[in-house]
Amino acid sequence: MRYSHTNTILLSLLAISLITVNASGSDIMVVSEATSDCLTCHASATPGIVANWYRGRHAETSPGRALHTPAPQRRFSAETAPAELADFVVGCAECHTLNAPTHGDTFEHNGYQVHTVVSPEDCAVCHPQERLEYADNLMAHACGNLNNNALYHTMMEAVNGTVSVDDDGALTHLPPGDATTAASCNYCHGTKIEVVGFETRENDFDDMTFPILTGWPNRGVGRINPDGSMGACTPCHARHQFSIEMARDPHTCAECHKGPDVPAYKVYSVSKHGNIFAALGKDWDREAVPWTLGRDFTAPTCAVCHISLVQDAEGETVATRTHRMNDRLSDRIFGLIYAHPHPKDANTAAIRNASGLPLPTELTGEPATEFLIDEDERQNRRSAMQNVCLSCHSTPWVMGHFEQLDTTIATTNQMTLAATQIMMQAWDEGLAHGPASDSSAFDETIERMWAEQWLFYANTVRFAAAMAGADYGVFENGRWHLSKNAQAMNDWLIMLRAAKR
Amino acid sequence: MRYSHTNTILLSLLAISLITVNASGSDIMVVSEATSDCLTCHASATPGIVANWYRGRHAETSPGRALHTPAPQRRFSAETAPAELADFVVGCAECHTLNAPTHGDTFEHNGYQVHTVVSPEDCAVCHPQERLEYADNLMAHACGNLNNNALYHTMMEAVNGTVSVDDDGALTHLPPGDATTAASCNYCHGTKIEVVGFETRENDFDDMTFPILTGWPNRGVGRINPDGSMGACTPCHARHQFSIEMARDPHTCAECHKGPDVPAYKVYSVSKHGNIFAALGKDWDREAVPWTLGRDFTAPTCAVCHISLVQDAEGETVATRTHRMNDRLSDRIFGLIYAHPHPKDANTAAIRNASGLPLPTELTGEPATEFLIDEDERQNRRSAMQNVCLSCHSTPWVMGHFEQLDTTIATTNQMTLAATQIMMQAWDEGLAHGPASDSSAFDETIERMWAEQWLFYANTVRFAAAMAGADYGVFENGRWHLSKNAQAMNDWLIMLRAAKR
Amino acid sequence: MRYSHTNTILLSLLAISLITVNASGSDIMVVSEATSDCLTCHASATPGIVANWYRGRHAETSPGRALHTPAPQRRFSAETAPAELADFVVGCAECHTLNAPTHGDTFEHNGYQVHTVVSPEDCAVCHPQERLEYADNLMAHACGNLNNNALYHTMMEAVNGTVSVDDDGALTHLPPGDATTAASCNYCHGTKIEVVGFETRENDFDDMTFPILTGWPNRGVGRINPDGSMGACTPCHARHQFSIEMARDPHTCAECHKGPDVPAYKVYSVSKHGNIFAALGKDWDREAVPWTLGRDFTAPTCAVCHISLVQDAEGETVATRTHRMNDRLSDRIFGLIYAHPHPKDANTAAIRNASGLPLPTELTGEPATEFLIDEDERQNRRSAMQNVCLSCHSTPWVMGHFEQLDTTIATTNQMTLAATQIMMQAWDEGLAHGPASDSSAFDETIERMWAEQWLFYANTVRFAAAMAGADYGVFENGRWHLSKNAQAMNDWLIMLRAAKR
Repeated sequence: MRYSHTNTILLSLLAISLITVNASGSDIMVVSEATSDCLTCHASATPGIVANWYRGRHAETSPGRALHTPAPQRRFSAETAPAELADFVVGCAECHTLNAPTHGDTFEHNGYQVHTVVSPEDCAVCHPQERLEYADNLMAHACGNLNNNALYHTMMEAVNGTVSVDDDGALTHLPPGDATTAASCNYCHGTKIEVVGFETRENDFDDMTFPILTGWPNRGVGRINPDGSMGACTPCHARHQFSIEMARDPHTCAECHKGPDVPAYKVYSVSKHGNIFAALGKDWDREAVPWTLGRDFTAPTCAVCHISLVQDAEGETVATRTHRMNDRLSDRIFGLIYAHPHPKDANTAAIRNASGLPLPTELTGEPATEFLIDEDERQNRRSAMQNVCLSCHSTPWVMGHFEQLDTTIATTNQMTLAATQIMMQAWDEGLAHGPASDSSAFDETIERMWAEQWLFYANTVRFAAAMAGADYGVFENGRWHLSKNAQAMNDWLIMLRAAKR
Repeated sequence: MRYSHTNTILLSLLAISLITVNASGSDIMVVSEATSDCLTCHASATPGIVANWYRGRHAETSPGRALHTPAPQRRFSAETAPAELADFVVGCAECHTLNAPTHGDTFEHNGYQVHTVVSPEDCAVCHPQERLEYADNLMAHACGNLNNNALYHTMMEAVNGTVSVDDDGALTHLPPGDATTAASCNYCHGTKIEVVGFETRENDFDDMTFPILTGWPNRGVGRINPDGSMGACTPCHARHQFSIEMARDPHTCAECHKGPDVPAYKVYSVSKHGNIFAALGKDWDREAVPWTLGRDFTAPTCAVCHISLVQDAEGETVATRTHRMNDRLSDRIFGLIYAHPHPKDANTAAIRNASGLPLPTELTGEPATEFLIDEDERQNRRSAMQNVCLSCHSTPWVMGHFEQLDTTIATTNQMTLAATQIMMQAWDEGLAHGPASDSSAFDETIERMWAEQWLFYANTVRFAAAMAGADYGVFENGRWHLSKNAQAMNDWLIMLRAAKR
Repeated sequence: MRYSHTNTILLSLLAISLITVNASGSDIMVVSEATSDCLTCHASATPGIVANWYRGRHAETSPGRALHTPAPQRRFSAETAPAELADFVVGCAECHTLNAPTHGDTFEHNGYQVHTVVSPEDCAVCHPQERLEYADNLMAHACGNLNNNALYHTMMEAVNGTVSVDDDGALTHLPPGDATTAASCNYCHGTKIEVVGFETRENDFDDMTFPILTGWPNRGVGRINPDGSMGACTPCHARHQFSIEMARDPHTCAECHKGPDVPAYKVYSVSKHGNIFAALGKDWDREAVPWTLGRDFTAPTCAVCHISLVQDAEGETVATRTHRMNDRLSDRIFGLIYAHPHPKDANTAAIRNASGLPLPTELTGEPATEFLIDEDERQNRRSAMQNVCLSCHSTPWVMGHFEQLDTTIATTNQMTLAATQIMMQAWDEGLAHGPASDSSAFDETIERMWAEQWLFYANTVRFAAAMAGADYGVFENGRWHLSKNAQAMNDWLIMLRAAKR
């Protein structure tokens, strides 16, 4: 391996110059000395990510220049560019040495105070508005909202734990360890990353000391970082290219939203919108900021409807950019037992229904109104979404579509109620043991059938109606299963009752 | 918003001229005055679809010019171009004001007689041959063939309806409303669109009156339109770009043919053909007419085998274009209880088996021969398909492939028979209640297991054999489930019988 | 049809010259007389594959030229180029007349001794190293390892066979025929192709005699060819373009590795790696040899981790090319009942566990150590894989990832053990009939539930951990089902016991 001056290495490796002239013809983009030091070793040690960074926008612009980009094109939301960062491209050191004192994982590394886990607070130096919005996004709270909810915690234990069988054939549940939940629910929801010590490792360069992190690696959307912040930007803006083209690609959302509990991507893929993206999306421009409908793209991706700043060809704003992803959503249609208006607060810890359960509805469906947005706010959010629809569709089309969605919410809630009534009957009869008898609601077969009714089937049917991907709302985890499962739960109970009598 | 002369708006918005010179160097393509009037408002009101249309062929050619395109390149099948359309690009008004008197949804709109729902009769002005073929296509009859079939109607009710549970735990089925079936089965099969009144709405421009449509929005393949016609061209030729590249993309077919009942796309995706498309299709030309194998594409998509005009590099016709999609198919391998020769008539309303049921076979599999194509016609259609195969594969390869398919049809029919015999036993014993006792054949658990045997598993296995996508014919809804389900039905019956004794 | 000199036909058909000048400016690439004779008819008879071949590298280089390509760029691994092949492009005759005496399917065809089935021995003339590696690959033995394993043979019979129901409702299993297994398991695993006679067929040219092949068509990875060799190169290097770009595309692996038994592609598609490929892979160079990370691609595909020669931008080797695909894999995580260290020998015929079953572990999980690689070799292989990971990820990241994988292997093995204990209890009680009573372990409902525990759910969870695609390791055939299924087996047994008492 060769270790020479970084720019020279990169020039030879990547055949392009890091010193570039920008569009205005004047500024010279330069790498900071600190980043240059990083690259000296990491071009060899981790060549993939160096090359990856090199392809991205961070390697070709500086905060100082970004600050002067006019408003709709601008991706930088801070009011000033910190002096020490302003004139350099956004390289390794610019992110990995920021806010050093607040990072619990900061360690001395070749003369620099470096941290492994770049957090939203680091990104907020240049992108404060996005960070604030995201802090109010349900996703930023995904770790605690799941792990700290007493009811859902029992689901995680039942799903991820192991079972052992004793000599009499009785099953015993054992709770999962951290490595298991990190590889399952918390892969998407986020782990809590903590420093539990330091270790010295020998490598090609020298003996070096690194922090020992628990919950690592992880890129969950609600990760709890060593600086105490919640969330991660990298699930969507993947390291180290940070490509907006990628963030706007539905496959990015699919990483967490494809399985039967949240089949958004799968439903999208059988919608006309998804069809147009798959067939003709190759001709689109997914890099443009602002994003102009008709010119840059001809059908929505996930980002168009839920996140992006969208304009029409006349420069009229169709939707403002938001990283609080329910800003354009009236109802929460997945994850909980019944569809319901979105919660007011992204941190759902305080929610209790009238029965005292940590749920936004009763087990029989009535909403816990005080914790949920009111009708005015529901209509505001729905209007924001419909404004996107109306760029291509007439008012009757859009009204008809939402009528189908509202009907679907009502009927799937009814089918969940039917399953819940059967479930409660089983609990009442002692054929299964639920929360009322201090037992898990998720560790018996009939309880899983009940949970599939809402967590898989009702969810899928609602997504299919919301996104007009009907092929996945009938037979693929859809209405077929919603109605079959209610019958099957009923039969199962009849057979179990008979077997146990 | 600015409202100036349309061409000026579009020039500024889209940065390309609507007045273009065609390949022959002489004709000037112009927008009709009516379309120009539409664009004046709609460039702002619905900018997405205007931009979309602008990208398509309709915005850059006129019927008059299309008429003079020589035969194999020609996409226009009328013998003449109507005088009032001949010299203008095919814009908004050209389609949305055609045949005004016959459209039940025609309304006065800024001085024009406009209709919302463009029907196959409108498309037929320029594309009469495609429209005639499609009228004979099973898909054009998809609404009535499903909704008016007494047996399948009960399936729709059981699948889409809701269930309520009374205090004794008994389940009651409630039939689905129109908004529900529109969001499920009829999303693909098609709704019946009717005008049920008119309403006046205030918008950015003025108070305007619009028809109130039931069954709207819908783009089902068998949609019943306000002019009485059946079918829609837009499910495949999506508005408003009408891209042939898109129609030839398998993702277009996937919108309706991906779920477990018709997993054509999923099976294709694990076939070698689908693999080549996914890996190398980016280098193909999916726009070319005629479509030349080897040069324009190197493996079939859905359209190659089932629809398109395909030539070889010498200009020999490999397959003639057809929009009657079973022209190259001998057997109907999905949707019905048993695989059987294709029905003679695309309208299957008249079909009755010997038992009087509206089915093309007996419940025990024997075909209702008089309604089905005979052996000669089966061979003709199969030969048409094999002619496509033989462009790349040797005769022994093709014969071997079809032997595997025929064996698969026979064995999946046998596995369906086994399941049906178990089902009949349940009906006979009163453990379930079927048509013979005037009860639905689809509202009990064991009945759903029976239906999955043919509707999911036998279908999937046949598709896997027909399209050589074996990975989805064994474990993914395939043979594994076909054999497991027969056993499970048997066990279920044993357990149910015991529970009820 | 026209039949003139081949080059002329092709020039007119494909509009490019077969006589090309290579990069060094000197050599002329020419078609052999034999291949020219083939093309004379086949350009018309099977135009698709001729055009396909024409697009590939074989049509534009010769063994003689390939021999002189320097090492890392070289794709030709022979030490010499046979004189009769050296100066011609690799056309029809070069492969289909090679090694004629050893091919059982050789037949006289217009003056040439031609064989239909090109085998790895033919490819080995130019690619001997790849052929040797592949001969040691489990995939080359996929036909025998499945079909000749007594236990798995009973699974194939139960899955693929048919069931008939007698008048008393009893089910009888009938074994599958060869056409059925060829269309199911052996589509991927490979058939045995044998010549069972010859037949004369009339075609456009003349009466011709061709061999009658059983097990044809087939492109299974472990195909047994008429020359006695095992394997096929074409499942990944698809005829007749033989594109390396395609072999490196994950959709190629998906043809066999997408279903619930081996969901590698599905898991990859929801990993961050798969996400980057889907969103940004269009900008990669999948043709380059050697393949340089960061420059040619920015995230691994299947080939990067398992097969390809990978370098970094400095020319350092990250991974050496191998066609023995477990060279970088420590543990076999799918297909068998428990995850275990990889077998020493790709031919697993000799493996017997302590109970005498043809399995690499006991039914209760203990490994049959003497047939499996030892701990040193496990670590060697794992290090080879980790070297790829470390190109982009830090040591703590990689160690943390593999800790999650090892935990997942342990917990999925425990969940399989629990299901097996329930299964054994059923066998002991006579509620099901297994190997101990000379009955199939796969033909009863509870046995299928047991098999799904390891063949679908444990496999899927392990793939999700191995490839960091957690969304498909929880709800989509993942941990949810692993824990639900154990409960459901238990309930099923309770209900079956009660029904049979």
